[in-house]
Amino acid sequence: MSLNSDLTIALDVMGGDQGPFITISSAIMAINQQPNLHLILCGDEPIITATLASFNISQETLATHKQLSIFPTSQVVLMSDKPIVALRTKKDSSMRKALDLVHEGKAQACVSAGNTGALFSMAHFVLKNIPGVERPALISSLPTHDEDKHVFMLDLGANVFCDSHVLYQFGVMGSIMAEQVDGISQPRVALLNMGEESIKGSDHIKLAALELSENKEINYIGFIEGSDIFSNKADVIVCDGFVGNVALKTCEGVARLVYQKSKAAFSASLLAKLFGSLLKPSFKKLFKTMNPDQYNGASLIGLRGIVVKSHGNANSSAFLSAIEEAVKEVERQVPEKIKISFEDSCASR
Amino acid sequence: MSLNSDLTIALDVMGGDQGPFITISSAIMAINQQPNLHLILCGDEPIITATLASFNISQETLATHKQLSIFPTSQVVLMSDKPIVALRTKKDSSMRKALDLVHEGKAQACVSAGNTGALFSMAHFVLKNIPGVERPALISSLPTHDEDKHVFMLDLGANVFCDSHVLYQFGVMGSIMAEQVDGISQPRVALLNMGEESIKGSDHIKLAALELSENKEINYIGFIEGSDIFSNKADVIVCDGFVGNVALKTCEGVARLVYQKSKAAFSASLLAKLFGSLLKPSFKKLFKTMNPDQYNGASLIGLRGIVVKSHGNANSSAFLSAIEEAVKEVERQVPEKIKISFEDSCASR
Repeated sequence: MSLNSDLTIALDVMGGDQGPFITISSAIMAINQQPNLHLILCGDEPIITATLASFNISQETLATHKQLSIFPTSQVVLMSDKPIVALRTKKDSSMRKALDLVHEGKAQACVSAGNTGALFSMAHFVLKNIPGVERPALISSLPTHDEDKHVFMLDLGANVFCDSHVLYQFGVMGSIMAEQVDGISQPRVALLNMGEESIKGSDHIKLAALELSENKEINYIGFIEGSDIFSNKADVIVCDGFVGNVALKTCEGVARLVYQKSKAAFSASLLAKLFGSLLKPSFKKLFKTMNPDQYNGASLIGLRGIVVKSHGNANSSAFLSAIEEAVKEVERQVPEKIKISFEDSCASR
Repeated sequence: MSLNSDLTIALDVMGGDQGPFITISSAIMAINQQPNLHLILCGDEPIITATLASFNISQETLATHKQLSIFPTSQVVLMSDKPIVALRTKKDSSMRKALDLVHEGKAQACVSAGNTGALFSMAHFVLKNIPGVERPALISSLPTHDEDKHVFMLDLGANVFCDSHVLYQFGVMGSIMAEQVDGISQPRVALLNMGEESIKGSDHIKLAALELSENKEINYIGFIEGSDIFSNKADVIVCDGFVGNVALKTCEGVARLVYQKSKAAFSASLLAKLFGSLLKPSFKKLFKTMNPDQYNGASLIGLRGIVVKSHGNANSSAFLSAIEEAVKEVERQVPEKIKISFEDSCASR
């Protein structure tokens, strides 16, 4: 696929807490931005056509639309659905069909804001792992002190526990992601640990460190602490899904706490109130970027296809970011690059 | 011991990055605040006497001082010392002697800003666990959205991995700490997990949840996510030391990032600069409280004695907080309360 050829992405328009209005408005923004993008809207047909109509896209327009089409589905995966139940019983859901379209080669990527566990189980079942990859991971980019740089962190919650070789493979996949998507040559890969000293942490982290340092293709820089996630000391930070999930959600909690406390500081006195109201817009922007889980899509990496997960609470600009992320991964052929790397015996066991 | 009787605390004045000037100035603040407090300054005698002299406390005054005395030691545990090496070779260090004084009943608590790993190993060796306690833990209180409430979190890094029974015991000890130190009746105890649903997380977390819910003395409220650490949904949050350490240090990292980004927002324009300079003091205060690792002491809980760890970077007000925390734990007899609870068969295995 060349960079300028048509690209097709399947959207699970029913997923997320905010409903199809948000996902469809993002879809319209995306096609307006990118003329070679085709989006397949998977979901309840009457709801989709009604929503499109509210954006002045009639059924007649849609019939000949070059960038939008509907794939009608009869089921919705709920946020409360257990992954295993969704996998077994929701075969005609918008989420499942969007993944099926990727599997069948009718779309090059899938984007969903739905139930993370269900998406992970279904994606794993439908798309399968790239040969040699033991576990797919959830990866996302977070902000750093340096305005122009961000850091990829994985796993953010797809796997509760990861042994040393799985952590090692996350390092390899994260390095490819940073190189392809951000164009960083020799990305700095670090393992998240309780301290920077080599004696710190569990045995499986020490073993993963050894394995990463032995791979000459990887620029492994050592252990990193939670306090340095945002310091731009690394381009890729590797941890197991439990730790990654807690760290990411703790960021969200701290951002919310600081926001609430600074609002209080801004209303402590009449003077502060006055100044606060003038500074509020820049602070709102700041706290938005501080909530990495919100502002960006996370990708399932290690599968034979591209799956981007948007936050369940995503607004239309956040869901648009997730679509853009999917476009980038399609253009840079991330799964293909991982496949090539894992064909090399260094990466697989 | 009644609340008003004399209390004696041993200080490791050599520990910490800032040196004896900080620890000794905190000691002087503490005795001025609390007339029944006696502090034993463990460390290099010439350095201590010289530092005291700079605060106008001469050797003569010290000889008859009712609240201060020196315990001369010849060694210092360095931040770079491996715990096992410090334990074996630094038997005359200020840290070790401060712990010995607690063990010998000559002090009721020890406070140190030194090497955490070494302090933990030495404290464990010198003081031993309370009978029935499998692993001591590092516990600290963090701020919440509610100005007047905070939350105790443990383990913050003493144990890399904790099985279900150890997590359960942390819940019991944390509950006693919240009840005794903060006077909360029936503290709400939660387990930190990847999600709130009962199916989430590792087997040992699910087993710990079961054990906690079966103990009628504990007000176990279920799983909590990282995003809710500061939401005042729980009074005690339990996790293993790896996860707790990463979460705490991630808070530190986010606080630093927000501080740096808000400084940038304050200097984005001349107007913002003007307003920023007026709001700076309240923001400085805000970010100080947002850095829980800095502003408060953490305690080693589960030992037959009270050990409070101050941050290595602590300034004199932070080290003073750690002394105050030790005083509180002495007054509320926290180890004794844990001992009584663990004599009950519910808590021990």
